[in-house]
Amino acid sequence: MPIKPSIPKGTRDFSATDIAKRNFLKQVLRQNFEAYGFEPIETPTFERTETLLGKYGDEGDRLIFRILNSGEKVKKANIDALAAGKLGAFADSVTEKALRYDLTVPFARYVAQYQNDIVFPFRRYQIQPVWRADRPQHGRFQEFVQCDADIIGDRSLVQELEVIQLYDKVFSDLKLTGVNVRLNHRKILAGLAAAIGAPDQLIAFTVALDKLDKIGIEGVEKELIDQGFATDVVAKLNPILSLEGNAEEKLDQLKLILADHPEALEGIEELNYIFKTLQKQGLQCVSLDVDLTLARGLNYYTGMIVEVRAPKSVKMGSIGGGGRYDDLAGSFGLKDKSGIGISFGFDRIFLILEELNLFPKEIVKRTQLLFLHTGEAGLDWCINALQNLRQAGLAAEIYPSAAKFKKQLNYAHQKQIPFVLIYGEEEQAQGVFVLKNMTSGHQKTHPLITPIASLLSN
Amino acid sequence: MPIKPSIPKGTRDFSATDIAKRNFLKQVLRQNFEAYGFEPIETPTFERTETLLGKYGDEGDRLIFRILNSGEKVKKANIDALAAGKLGAFADSVTEKALRYDLTVPFARYVAQYQNDIVFPFRRYQIQPVWRADRPQHGRFQEFVQCDADIIGDRSLVQELEVIQLYDKVFSDLKLTGVNVRLNHRKILAGLAAAIGAPDQLIAFTVALDKLDKIGIEGVEKELIDQGFATDVVAKLNPILSLEGNAEEKLDQLKLILADHPEALEGIEELNYIFKTLQKQGLQCVSLDVDLTLARGLNYYTGMIVEVRAPKSVKMGSIGGGGRYDDLAGSFGLKDKSGIGISFGFDRIFLILEELNLFPKEIVKRTQLLFLHTGEAGLDWCINALQNLRQAGLAAEIYPSAAKFKKQLNYAHQKQIPFVLIYGEEEQAQGVFVLKNMTSGHQKTHPLITPIASLLSN
Repeated sequence: MPIKPSIPKGTRDFSATDIAKRNFLKQVLRQNFEAYGFEPIETPTFERTETLLGKYGDEGDRLIFRILNSGEKVKKANIDALAAGKLGAFADSVTEKALRYDLTVPFARYVAQYQNDIVFPFRRYQIQPVWRADRPQHGRFQEFVQCDADIIGDRSLVQELEVIQLYDKVFSDLKLTGVNVRLNHRKILAGLAAAIGAPDQLIAFTVALDKLDKIGIEGVEKELIDQGFATDVVAKLNPILSLEGNAEEKLDQLKLILADHPEALEGIEELNYIFKTLQKQGLQCVSLDVDLTLARGLNYYTGMIVEVRAPKSVKMGSIGGGGRYDDLAGSFGLKDKSGIGISFGFDRIFLILEELNLFPKEIVKRTQLLFLHTGEAGLDWCINALQNLRQAGLAAEIYPSAAKFKKQLNYAHQKQIPFVLIYGEEEQAQGVFVLKNMTSGHQKTHPLITPIASLLSN
Repeated sequence: MPIKPSIPKGTRDFSATDIAKRNFLKQVLRQNFEAYGFEPIETPTFERTETLLGKYGDEGDRLIFRILNSGEKVKKANIDALAAGKLGAFADSVTEKALRYDLTVPFARYVAQYQNDIVFPFRRYQIQPVWRADRPQHGRFQEFVQCDADIIGDRSLVQELEVIQLYDKVFSDLKLTGVNVRLNHRKILAGLAAAIGAPDQLIAFTVALDKLDKIGIEGVEKELIDQGFATDVVAKLNPILSLEGNAEEKLDQLKLILADHPEALEGIEELNYIFKTLQKQGLQCVSLDVDLTLARGLNYYTGMIVEVRAPKSVKMGSIGGGGRYDDLAGSFGLKDKSGIGISFGFDRIFLILEELNLFPKEIVKRTQLLFLHTGEAGLDWCINALQNLRQAGLAAEIYPSAAKFKKQLNYAHQKQIPFVLIYGEEEQAQGVFVLKNMTSGHQKTHPLITPIASLLSN
């Protein structure tokens, strides 16, 4: 019984056209990372389970793909745990390795492991696939590419400027207009929580706030009250979230509202510096906003928080984000390394470029010339000419066998090969070859000594 | 308790220098594949277990990394199988997916799955990592890159020529001289087995033959006798394996020895054609030989068999190989697709290039210029100049904070950044900047309007 050829849900095969487009996007990212002084690293597909587990919360742990131990080691399976429904403990007993779930934890592990060889501040980028046992759905895959850039080992705000300039440069190079970069600051969020009288409930507060886009102010208020915040406390939030004006105006108003919260004023000061400097320096492509509801990964971020939104014309939401953190590699024993990191949502950006038709034409490298196979007589000359063209870097092929011309021409047609060369007995007798332009259909006879490469343009 | 930062045995982290070298090798391979009309495909990291199992023999099956099912699915664990020591059956009960073990089976699956979209003859290449639960040792990894090129859908010998020419071109581009390409043919091996009176024991015969290099003729004879071959039968082998002369002379002698075995004569005829044509066309870099002991993957190959040996000056053995096959995708229900495939031993070739110092200098993309951070005064100008340089495609950085110059210069030194620019209060007052050449140690003052990029060469 033959096996039905198929791939696991949530994974993809990539054809030559897919790969050419994906490489184009990777290349734009790589070039810019390197222009900004970031250097690439790559980490293994699987890490030790203890490196990964406990870093992404319970839900994250469940979504990590684990590798079953090989050979005799599976005999250590904890059957009791299985019987008791303790699936995590059972999994622990039969696995030692797991697939990379993101690039942040492997990077933290890398920095701690090679701390004595690394030159700090360390600027690294990493473009590699990650794997998550998420339920596959449209646009969400179990295997997808992440793309991160981090600078670790310095607290200077110049780095906040640089990561925003980097976003601007990449989207400018991709000719993707309308991208919106939104900033917030952990210290401002902490000030807001304090201002409404809930300094200890920062996380619950921001989780609710984060939903403003979806459920509106009333929804956020309701959620906060459901979570035990007092009604009069919640009422204080409305005027803050309704601030109007551009970023600078919003920050000016916030400064008055949060005047009694020195930590918040620090955050406002930092964002002010960032906005003012970027205004002076000028951004080419992206627009910049303050967004007080922005809280992505707040457990982790300690300073500026950034999120990148797709142009409004496409329904995609976030296509990148990041922020300032203070304890990247603490769990690996490396303390006091502040850093800043951003990521690009590779697959989402890919889909947008596709939707907006922004991939350059002609990025797929196609065979430029097909030698028809005319039989023994002309074969030696054809193979020799073919080798010379390849030597010169031109992509060329010979049809492998002397099939009917119709079949051979159809092969050229289907593979979109623009030129076909014919050198059979007749041509050999006359000392010529025939070149057919597959686009126009014209064909022309040339003396044998004509340099073929010079003829291959439309 | 911090976790000790480390990676699983048999895996590797790659630094910027590693990656630059690996990309150089990949790029040479890619360019040549594409010049030869091969198009890239990529397949998922994991496949369905039923796609992979049973394709690599029992030993292979044991070396496949399987992914533990997520969530509730592990409850289906076959405890009885575990208790009975049936580890394969236990693994089957808790896994549905497994990591790619090679590129051949995923390619076969791909061809069968997309047979209606693919234009045949289909020329594909694939450069991707694979994973094997082999015991890690020096130069053998659990995660390593494979690199395959196949042409499927035609039986013409022109393809045998092409894959050898491709080997020649790649090693020529890599400037790796002394590579030896050895050819054999399944039909010749079958003829030899028949000639010594053991036509039904072809595999056992070739497995013994394959060890000639290591154990010598006497060792091979002993092994054959141990396996039940008759002594007088084995004695016939000696003169055949002792054939002398160049490839053509060996084939001529073989033709006499195997004159009564028409199938073997076909194989000899094919190799003769290949040798003669390649002699006419000329190979630039590799030498070509007949090697009657060559039997790699004989279960699979049906025509020419090829193996590539590293130059004698390095102890590395095989660095590539392949051959003609007739039933790539039969197990996926696609019959009668003959093809030819070759592979390049990526990691071994990498080690050889390293050992022979064949990687070009300056392939690591380094930051070309570091702006020293001199404090607030000059910062705006520096950031602006920095952005302009990056815009022009130059890799440049500013040290993030106003650390001591010694520290900043040390950063440039350690990162091998060749130029450093200083623009502080003093320079600002004079309308100049200072450029320091980190290699020579010289520094020079330039008017502010000097285009910086024009100064950055030694």
